[in-house]
Amino acid sequence: MLDANEQMAETNRRLFADQNVFVLNVMSSPGSGKTTTLVKTIERLQTLGIQCAVIVGDICTRNDAVRLAATDVPAVQINTDQFGGDCHLTAQGILKALDGIDLSIIDLLIVENVGNLVCPAEFDIGENARAVILSVTEGEDKPLKYPLMFRQCHVALLNKTDLLPYLDFDATTAVANIHEVHPDMPVWPMSAKTGDGFEPWIEWIQAMIRQ
Amino acid sequence: MLDANEQMAETNRRLFADQNVFVLNVMSSPGSGKTTTLVKTIERLQTLGIQCAVIVGDICTRNDAVRLAATDVPAVQINTDQFGGDCHLTAQGILKALDGIDLSIIDLLIVENVGNLVCPAEFDIGENARAVILSVTEGEDKPLKYPLMFRQCHVALLNKTDLLPYLDFDATTAVANIHEVHPDMPVWPMSAKTGDGFEPWIEWIQAMIRQ
Repeated sequence: MLDANEQMAETNRRLFADQNVFVLNVMSSPGSGKTTTLVKTIERLQTLGIQCAVIVGDICTRNDAVRLAATDVPAVQINTDQFGGDCHLTAQGILKALDGIDLSIIDLLIVENVGNLVCPAEFDIGENARAVILSVTEGEDKPLKYPLMFRQCHVALLNKTDLLPYLDFDATTAVANIHEVHPDMPVWPMSAKTGDGFEPWIEWIQAMIRQ
Repeated sequence: MLDANEQMAETNRRLFADQNVFVLNVMSSPGSGKTTTLVKTIERLQTLGIQCAVIVGDICTRNDAVRLAATDVPAVQINTDQFGGDCHLTAQGILKALDGIDLSIIDLLIVENVGNLVCPAEFDIGENARAVILSVTEGEDKPLKYPLMFRQCHVALLNKTDLLPYLDFDATTAVANIHEVHPDMPVWPMSAKTGDGFEPWIEWIQAMIRQ
């Protein structure tokens, strides 16, 4: 099963390379703020002249695609309940969703994966890079409990920092835990709600696209 | 695979019935406050003379078993990384963990499942009832996005209400969304941090055990 997915992921990756599109797979637990983060990310990238599109995975509902489409970029929703309520996106699902996106006019395709800190990390979808969002409300120990996700991703966003005054969350410990499973991984504290802390993340995306 | 699990779940259920143990499967996203909720739940049940034990599932770390063992109840950790980093507990895993628990002296076995709002809902472990914890930081739409979990569970705890003043979270909408996928499901707002709102949950557990 995973081998068939890996073959399809390679097909996707060649297609993206041919069209000169950079693909970023964004993963996290449910409710960590993926969609809010991506709406604000896309708004900033648009002001920099970067053409984006987004594919959003959820078991059910089209809520996130509606929120992302408000940024005026192409937004395609995948609902995995057609596939038995799959807990992750597959390379095959991404290929099908590409029917709704003209790759020739975009620079960056962002994939918002199903909210799940376990399974999506196991499925290559043909992306070029992966980001994990950890909300500060989730606790410092999550990188140790879900190590595959933090190992597989290239960067981590520490979201909802606006709530830090009301939490017993130790950001230093959280970063140390991330580095225990993935040494030197960039970790950027931010608040998708207030917009604070987006600069290193936006600069990293720009650098990735320019490569 | 699921059929073999269902058969094993029936074996577990008969074992629990023979020993007159009520088994409660508690599920949620990562970081919704399962362990804190269960520590406070067990402390209250102990004052009521209810003998508890707990099985805790995580991919990695023994952190949660250590926290739960501080309540002086038997606490057995299952680490699913031995099984390829499984994203859920299985009936077989529960049966194995029972080696560490004397069922004849307990009234209630609480199972804290792997943090995941998708997959654990698909695997019967031989429990008598299921509870889902939704943290108010996760947003109101989660019941619509992860309907199987909310359909499969008997009660929902709306945790971290101490953070409500700092969030744009509409509890009325969240409850309406839960009832859209599971009409009449009891939903109890609470704060595991402050201890507020535990009464209906504790009363429900007491009533379940008495059945």
